[in-house]
Amino acid sequence: MIIVVKQQREQKQFDNLVKWIKSQGLEIDISNGSHSTVLGLIGDTTKIDIDLVRSLDIVEDVKRIQEPYKCANRKFHPDDTIVEVCGKKFGGDNFQFIAGPCSIESEKQIIEVAEAVKAAGATFLRGGAFKPRTSPYAFQGLRENGLGLLLKAKAETGMPIVTELMSVKHLDLFKDVDIIQIGARNMQNFELLKEVGKVKKPVLLKRGLANTVEEWLMSAEYIMSEGCKDVILCERGIRTFEPYTRNTLDLSAIPLLKELTHLPVIVDPSHASGLSRLVKPLSLASVGAGAHGLMIEVHNDPPHALCDGAQSVKPEQFEDIVKSVDVMLPIVGKVRGQW
Amino acid sequence: MIIVVKQQREQKQFDNLVKWIKSQGLEIDISNGSHSTVLGLIGDTTKIDIDLVRSLDIVEDVKRIQEPYKCANRKFHPDDTIVEVCGKKFGGDNFQFIAGPCSIESEKQIIEVAEAVKAAGATFLRGGAFKPRTSPYAFQGLRENGLGLLLKAKAETGMPIVTELMSVKHLDLFKDVDIIQIGARNMQNFELLKEVGKVKKPVLLKRGLANTVEEWLMSAEYIMSEGCKDVILCERGIRTFEPYTRNTLDLSAIPLLKELTHLPVIVDPSHASGLSRLVKPLSLASVGAGAHGLMIEVHNDPPHALCDGAQSVKPEQFEDIVKSVDVMLPIVGKVRGQW
Amino acid sequence: MIIVVKQQREQKQFDNLVKWIKSQGLEIDISNGSHSTVLGLIGDTTKIDIDLVRSLDIVEDVKRIQEPYKCANRKFHPDDTIVEVCGKKFGGDNFQFIAGPCSIESEKQIIEVAEAVKAAGATFLRGGAFKPRTSPYAFQGLRENGLGLLLKAKAETGMPIVTELMSVKHLDLFKDVDIIQIGARNMQNFELLKEVGKVKKPVLLKRGLANTVEEWLMSAEYIMSEGCKDVILCERGIRTFEPYTRNTLDLSAIPLLKELTHLPVIVDPSHASGLSRLVKPLSLASVGAGAHGLMIEVHNDPPHALCDGAQSVKPEQFEDIVKSVDVMLPIVGKVRGQW
Amino acid sequence: MIIVVKQQREQKQFDNLVKWIKSQGLEIDISNGSHSTVLGLIGDTTKIDIDLVRSLDIVEDVKRIQEPYKCANRKFHPDDTIVEVCGKKFGGDNFQFIAGPCSIESEKQIIEVAEAVKAAGATFLRGGAFKPRTSPYAFQGLRENGLGLLLKAKAETGMPIVTELMSVKHLDLFKDVDIIQIGARNMQNFELLKEVGKVKKPVLLKRGLANTVEEWLMSAEYIMSEGCKDVILCERGIRTFEPYTRNTLDLSAIPLLKELTHLPVIVDPSHASGLSRLVKPLSLASVGAGAHGLMIEVHNDPPHALCDGAQSVKPEQFEDIVKSVDVMLPIVGKVRGQW
Repeated sequence: MIIVVKQQREQKQFDNLVKWIKSQGLEIDISNGSHSTVLGLIGDTTKIDIDLVRSLDIVEDVKRIQEPYKCANRKFHPDDTIVEVCGKKFGGDNFQFIAGPCSIESEKQIIEVAEAVKAAGATFLRGGAFKPRTSPYAFQGLRENGLGLLLKAKAETGMPIVTELMSVKHLDLFKDVDIIQIGARNMQNFELLKEVGKVKKPVLLKRGLANTVEEWLMSAEYIMSEGCKDVILCERGIRTFEPYTRNTLDLSAIPLLKELTHLPVIVDPSHASGLSRLVKPLSLASVGAGAHGLMIEVHNDPPHALCDGAQSVKPEQFEDIVKSVDVMLPIVGKVRGQW
Repeated sequence: MIIVVKQQREQKQFDNLVKWIKSQGLEIDISNGSHSTVLGLIGDTTKIDIDLVRSLDIVEDVKRIQEPYKCANRKFHPDDTIVEVCGKKFGGDNFQFIAGPCSIESEKQIIEVAEAVKAAGATFLRGGAFKPRTSPYAFQGLRENGLGLLLKAKAETGMPIVTELMSVKHLDLFKDVDIIQIGARNMQNFELLKEVGKVKKPVLLKRGLANTVEEWLMSAEYIMSEGCKDVILCERGIRTFEPYTRNTLDLSAIPLLKELTHLPVIVDPSHASGLSRLVKPLSLASVGAGAHGLMIEVHNDPPHALCDGAQSVKPEQFEDIVKSVDVMLPIVGKVRGQW
Repeated sequence: MIIVVKQQREQKQFDNLVKWIKSQGLEIDISNGSHSTVLGLIGDTTKIDIDLVRSLDIVEDVKRIQEPYKCANRKFHPDDTIVEVCGKKFGGDNFQFIAGPCSIESEKQIIEVAEAVKAAGATFLRGGAFKPRTSPYAFQGLRENGLGLLLKAKAETGMPIVTELMSVKHLDLFKDVDIIQIGARNMQNFELLKEVGKVKKPVLLKRGLANTVEEWLMSAEYIMSEGCKDVILCERGIRTFEPYTRNTLDLSAIPLLKELTHLPVIVDPSHASGLSRLVKPLSLASVGAGAHGLMIEVHNDPPHALCDGAQSVKPEQFEDIVKSVDVMLPIVGKVRGQW
Repeated sequence: MIIVVKQQREQKQFDNLVKWIKSQGLEIDISNGSHSTVLGLIGDTTKIDIDLVRSLDIVEDVKRIQEPYKCANRKFHPDDTIVEVCGKKFGGDNFQFIAGPCSIESEKQIIEVAEAVKAAGATFLRGGAFKPRTSPYAFQGLRENGLGLLLKAKAETGMPIVTELMSVKHLDLFKDVDIIQIGARNMQNFELLKEVGKVKKPVLLKRGLANTVEEWLMSAEYIMSEGCKDVILCERGIRTFEPYTRNTLDLSAIPLLKELTHLPVIVDPSHASGLSRLVKPLSLASVGAGAHGLMIEVHNDPPHALCDGAQSVKPEQFEDIVKSVDVMLPIVGKVRGQW
């Protein structure tokens, strides 16, 4: 960490700062320039609150040299983490498809979708039981009942399941869930992250709508520092000024994350744009960027569904995406998980 | 709600959409143009999921005419809501100062700060017991113990208290807290919002870092739809590309909110910029924009504190801010709460 | 265009608005609801200033139904535009590589790079003569001399050239340039757009750092409304809060643009991230998203260059990208331009 | 400047980097840590291209310590710059109102507005002759004729005038303009900035919609490095994800700029929100934040104007704003310019 100290300053404040830094177990390298003094902090600075230091009157600027995350940092763990769930692997050269409906609606629906996506190449079944909705008046998911239906689909098809946890109060219900999803809106729900980390199940951590890559890795760190090693990151778009798409998928984050962390990174192209006709091109783009997997909403369109063309793609479109991805995978050195 | 339907479409899809809209209890006004067909939905559209409709293949665009919030909507509640807490009022012509340290550190610290800010003009004491921190390695607050110290300061000084709730698991501990704060990172923690709404205590709801004014009002709606009427909105800065300040304080939101909602709106100038020397100008700016109050971090700088000039202002600086605000309040037609 | 009018309003203001709309040659469909009145404007609304209408006291909201662009609109021009330059085609099923150095530095450099990228598969040579730089103290390009060297490289290698125009004052110098590039910072330099449109040469229009897809198409419209039909759009990243990458490449814009416009769309992966090691994954991602071409910075790394690993990729890395792209192109139904 | 070099690196690349830095006339302080090596560059680093250094393979990160601007930097010019135009002063304790219509429409209109705003307290007249419009089909201003009318209003009322320059081709027409305005969309039109700097007239430089404070000061530096000392900065809102307001006024930038630069800073509250009813609260907020002046759109609403309540405030509303600001100015230690 580099602290730039103002030239105009009270000596007492400067001495206090130096004393405080040393009390944190750090060494200091002081370099006096003509317009500012630069302090180089040597040692483990992960516990230093950079915002607090920046706010000091005598501080002109402060910059981190070391990343503030450790467990998630590739520097301290050079090899790719392979998250293995029910024999299927995320990370390294492995590529997995997670597929399923946005919301679980009925036993028939979830089982039919599960069978369709399994046949098309998905190795994991997703489905929302607890749904985070902007409006309190919108459908909040079938909740406990939905989870029950998802577990039935798992029993019926043998597919491991991924579903979102929204409150520590529901944690007990998730004991047979294979991968616990933390949604974008809860990425910085720190109390939830700590509790999830203690469960030691694989966690799929979505990126928050307005969170930087560093904050995302710090949220992974919350989970990992409680003992969980199996975190899968999932890019799903960030908030920008562009109104045509619901969010802007940040695919540059994929190759970047591969440098910064050893954790697997997948992409959710369904939520990023909110437009089903963009799912295929964004899926191919994600594979090109180096993703370890895709999480895609697939709907079987029964008579009760809203009407043709909901935001989820249909099973036949999903199959078409899997086939195109299969042609691409050798170019990026990956192999798709098989049954 | 206006739905623009594509000219090239299957008739069956169009019929399905019309049937579905009617099944939601809405009437439809259909207007055929040369390049698109426009459906005007008449009735209560708050339950319609706009993202779902937008994602339909035959839909070109969809736009809301009515706001999706009701309890928080000024159209259905033209008069200002006055949130009265321990005899002090937020909203209307009332202006309140909430002040106190970022974190509660010790009994001596919190009582000394409380006495200082009370003497200077604050009517509410704030202090963090549970602290949301980006890093799991950073100080997480004194938690239960901190809350105990804050309650002691309340008993000692008679000041009503405001403090942040981070998990439904801690709700029982908050029964003597006067205003429950929901922080920016939990603004869309919907399960927490619902539980807080049931408690029927006044809630101070901070704006999320990347949330629009409409989403903010929808989160207020979550709380209000559970029966709580006393929600105070608190602007604290949004995330933008500008790196000099931690966040960008959105003061345009203040006069805008006064049109859209009847709820009181205050500003937290301490967190927005992260720079204590910006607190005074941003406080005056907030008053100019029409805020109903200010929430300011004040620190008493004991020997154990980091050093002079932490991000909180000192009691004498807080007093100076109160005095300047007092001169301004008549211009904006407000009266400061007194003891 | 839909105008939502407030329920509380002076009749005179409403009548004035209706009169004014009719004076613009439009018809009005008035629909009275319980909380607002909705005016549907029928006719060509492209000349209506939406910001002006929105700012009226009696207007609650205003929304466009029709896109405000015509020449660039796929609705009025369903077939893909094919921009043909020196026998090479952009658009439709055609895919082109534009490659070359960031700045033209010397005759030797530009000719060597041109030969290398031509051998590897590029069909167009790029090179900066006039360089837009944030700092007035940074190297501003070789300017007129740089353009001269680029023309020599064209003569030597037969490659058509692309280079950036920054001022109408330099337009005369560009008569032998094959494609005139308008940079991101000049995307809304409307006086420049008009002059460029009159020249009737193909224009490569980069997206502005903070511009929406609609504004980008409106800038294309400026050029096209002066008579130029050959506009190639180039996505190069937008400004977001994420600091790790210089800009955030918005690949969702590619499939979206294919719906909205008939113009070809290419991607510049070099400028988006500012990191040469991200160029290959972002190139493959761009192809997956459906781009009609790539513009890549390639440097030949002579002894005088800064040192190994500048932001441009080296010719051998460019060749590797071309080879990987070649494997992908059949999946997205495109064919690479050949010599 | 601090350069963090990767631990895994080729010695030759490192030596090349060190040699290159020294060739730029800088000294280097090398500090070896366990995970990275930190180079501290000592000397004038304003000419170093930080993006180029960041893009090197062996560089992990690079951070500026010194600001890249000099002429605009308060460190090298501690006293406030006072820009004096026709006897009226911007900067220091001075406060000025610039007022007038969005577009110049007729001789009668501009003269009537000029007289009204002068009577109400404005010391400068603004009016758009050349108008930057997103759409080529929207009214582009009266251009040369508009400028002529503005000059007539100046002659008639004695008010100095401010108007926007959009192209170097029009520079000759501006010789009797008192303050040349550079609009937000041209803030990084570097060729225009250089030409304007040579003219040595006062320049009002608006902030770009997506530009950081540092980039804004670098654009001021472009103008100042050509010899012009009289630059007035004008905040007018930045682009964010919030759709209710056209832009988000960044008032934190005002106190921040006062630390970073000696140049005067004013605010344009009319363009930021695009809503005339927000102009008064945002004006008061700007004064509270410490602005040196306000630029406000005022319209006289003749029969030919669109209808009541256009985005410009009316003369009587402007007068009300001036009166409220007058009460506030003593709190912020400023005095309003008088005739």
